[in-house]
Amino acid sequence: MYVILVYDVNVKRVAKMLKLCRKYLHWIQNSVFEGEIKESQLAELIHAAKKFLDPETDSIILFKSKDQKWLDKEIIGYEKSNLDNIL
Amino acid sequence: MYVILVYDVNVKRVAKMLKLCRKYLHWIQNSVFEGEIKESQLAELIHAAKKFLDPETDSIILFKSKDQKWLDKEIIGYEKSNLDNIL
Repeated sequence: MYVILVYDVNVKRVAKMLKLCRKYLHWIQNSVFEGEIKESQLAELIHAAKKFLDPETDSIILFKSKDQKWLDKEIIGYEKSNLDNIL
Repeated sequence: MYVILVYDVNVKRVAKMLKLCRKYLHWIQNSVFEGEIKESQLAELIHAAKKFLDPETDSIILFKSKDQKWLDKEIIGYEKSNLDNIL
């Protein structure tokens, strides 16, 4: 399964969220990740996130597709994920 | 066509970018928009954005799908777009 994950979490929890997402997905921009992931791994990620997120102020949006081929990706401007290795 | 648009632009250009995106799409989280849009309208949006964005520091990622049905959306935590009308 291919997913796009975008999060908006309080700055206190950003580092934890970033670390968690990087364990399962590829960082492509600020608070945006994408990648192939198994249903069970995604459940793990969500379970782990729910342990520290505040549902009243934090939010994760997941877009899930059976296959990446249903989505075209276009990047305008700087391709931030090129910096992935140094962040 | 259904698109998800995520941007990462310098704070000086955020207000302009937000205003431009809201003209064409629905705001769903921080710097994330989605919606049905015609190819010609998307071209307009991109053209307008390129006029003021700095390609060395700013970035827009577009995920495009012929039909929204290929994507499942799941929201964990707070649904920020409920605030859409007051922002």
